[in-house]
Amino acid sequence: MSNKIDVEVREVGLRDGLQNISTFMPTELKTAWITAEAAAGVPNIEVCSFVPVKLIPQFADAMDVVRHARNIDGLAVSALVPNLKGFERAVEAAVDEVDFVMSVSESHNKSNVRRSPEESVEDFKRITAMRNELPPDRRPKIVAGMATALGCSFEGKISLDAVRRIANALAEAGADELAIADTVGYADPALVKATFDAVRKDLPNMTLHAHFHDTRGLGLANVVAALEAGVRHFDASLGGLGGCQFAPNATGNINMEDLVFMLESMGLRTGVNVEKLVEVRDIIRKGLPEEPLTGAVAKAGVPKGYDPASLHSA
Amino acid sequence: MSNKIDVEVREVGLRDGLQNISTFMPTELKTAWITAEAAAGVPNIEVCSFVPVKLIPQFADAMDVVRHARNIDGLAVSALVPNLKGFERAVEAAVDEVDFVMSVSESHNKSNVRRSPEESVEDFKRITAMRNELPPDRRPKIVAGMATALGCSFEGKISLDAVRRIANALAEAGADELAIADTVGYADPALVKATFDAVRKDLPNMTLHAHFHDTRGLGLANVVAALEAGVRHFDASLGGLGGCQFAPNATGNINMEDLVFMLESMGLRTGVNVEKLVEVRDIIRKGLPEEPLTGAVAKAGVPKGYDPASLHSA
Repeated sequence: MSNKIDVEVREVGLRDGLQNISTFMPTELKTAWITAEAAAGVPNIEVCSFVPVKLIPQFADAMDVVRHARNIDGLAVSALVPNLKGFERAVEAAVDEVDFVMSVSESHNKSNVRRSPEESVEDFKRITAMRNELPPDRRPKIVAGMATALGCSFEGKISLDAVRRIANALAEAGADELAIADTVGYADPALVKATFDAVRKDLPNMTLHAHFHDTRGLGLANVVAALEAGVRHFDASLGGLGGCQFAPNATGNINMEDLVFMLESMGLRTGVNVEKLVEVRDIIRKGLPEEPLTGAVAKAGVPKGYDPASLHSA
Repeated sequence: MSNKIDVEVREVGLRDGLQNISTFMPTELKTAWITAEAAAGVPNIEVCSFVPVKLIPQFADAMDVVRHARNIDGLAVSALVPNLKGFERAVEAAVDEVDFVMSVSESHNKSNVRRSPEESVEDFKRITAMRNELPPDRRPKIVAGMATALGCSFEGKISLDAVRRIANALAEAGADELAIADTVGYADPALVKATFDAVRKDLPNMTLHAHFHDTRGLGLANVVAALEAGVRHFDASLGGLGGCQFAPNATGNINMEDLVFMLESMGLRTGVNVEKLVEVRDIIRKGLPEEPLTGAVAKAGVPKGYDPASLHSA
């Protein structure tokens, strides 16, 4: 994370949003989106998922999209990988950051990758083993993500012990950083605080990322709780893209524009210009005219006299 | 506040919502709304505003609505009063709680009531003087509200000194409790925490209420910050009713269903059943079919296995 920012926001709409949308977004609009959002100051963009193309045709152009993103000066380029095969492709594409994701919930993990959580940890060890054999300058940062860590639509509540067990196992297996995800929007601020505090206590030197969905309206409230717990890395998506195909009317990731507005209003530097960010929505609208977008700041505008720079301490 | 709850939520949609809606909501739907929401467990409802009927015809039936609400066992009945005349009517109606509101912002107060904030404090003294002459069993609780305390659409930022000055003046003048309002949705969690902390430091024994609007999506995030600052009284409106007529697309008060869902999920007892609460939306839809309603829990439903009672400590 650059020392000119206090909090790193990461755009995940091109992955977590697009993976649920069957309409193929043309490559030139994906790359235009990346260019514009990077120009608005977003420092890190998850640009694709290295899943088999026959499973998610939306990512058929993953290599082209990464190539474009890598040419943008100063942008950290991330990609999701579900397994070793995906990791190989991510290394070939030379992304800066690889996001491995598994579910803490046994049922959710089995449904997604037909493996128990323990088997997924073993898969992850194969990924870090391959990483360790790469020359140092070709090793991407590996962020290991724990989906359904804050609740599961199959199992309901997830025990904090299960989250700690998987977090410790992923750290032990060689994750550079960890992400705790509220995949289905079950979390509340008290649970967020308790979970991040517990994992941080176990792993005091580990950088923790928060990945929240706004399904029940608590996304930004959960960010406040995570900030309290010392979290400084947040995923979000422009326009809140990322509704779940199994939950009609449910919203997706937390809205990037509102997240940036909140953080900057609190005096936390993100490096992002919220007004430029709002303009990038037009690219999504052009590529996905049917998708509903969320966003309060995009509708209401910024407050009169809004000047986040005046709040920044440095 | 009953000792069976940890946080008091107050419904303000019948006042703050309806005051901006020109369609007259039939009295029998207003009273049905109050009955149903009280049955869902909401302990306090602001049922009307005692403003001149020619200014806001929506409140022409205020006396009838209060009479209905007063017959509901256990419900605290509040009403807004802008001036002495309104206070006289509120006393005649025998409401439990009177909400006097003035703006901390000079421009906003002048635009609303053609008075400086200092003149409004003098008006408030006439109200408390009249209250003091009433027999003790006829005295309503008086909550003095500071509109635009967290930002103003005319003036932008409001100084914390101005908020403290008005808060101290209203306390000195005899307010039983104080409300700090983000009338136009400019607040962020850091400002909320700083403001409530400062007022509490000046007035350590004063009960403070938070009244937030969700105009820029930060409503529940601001609630988290206010909870941190020790606030236990929150206004909200069912379906988020209360958009501002001067800001198209801007949403209104924070959404009651999502607020209750968040608080209960955090283990804070509100006395409210969120699933019953969601059903009350049908009454608003019937009375105001054109009004857009907000609400994430109403769309997505509660999480699998949701059982807030299991979280309650007592």
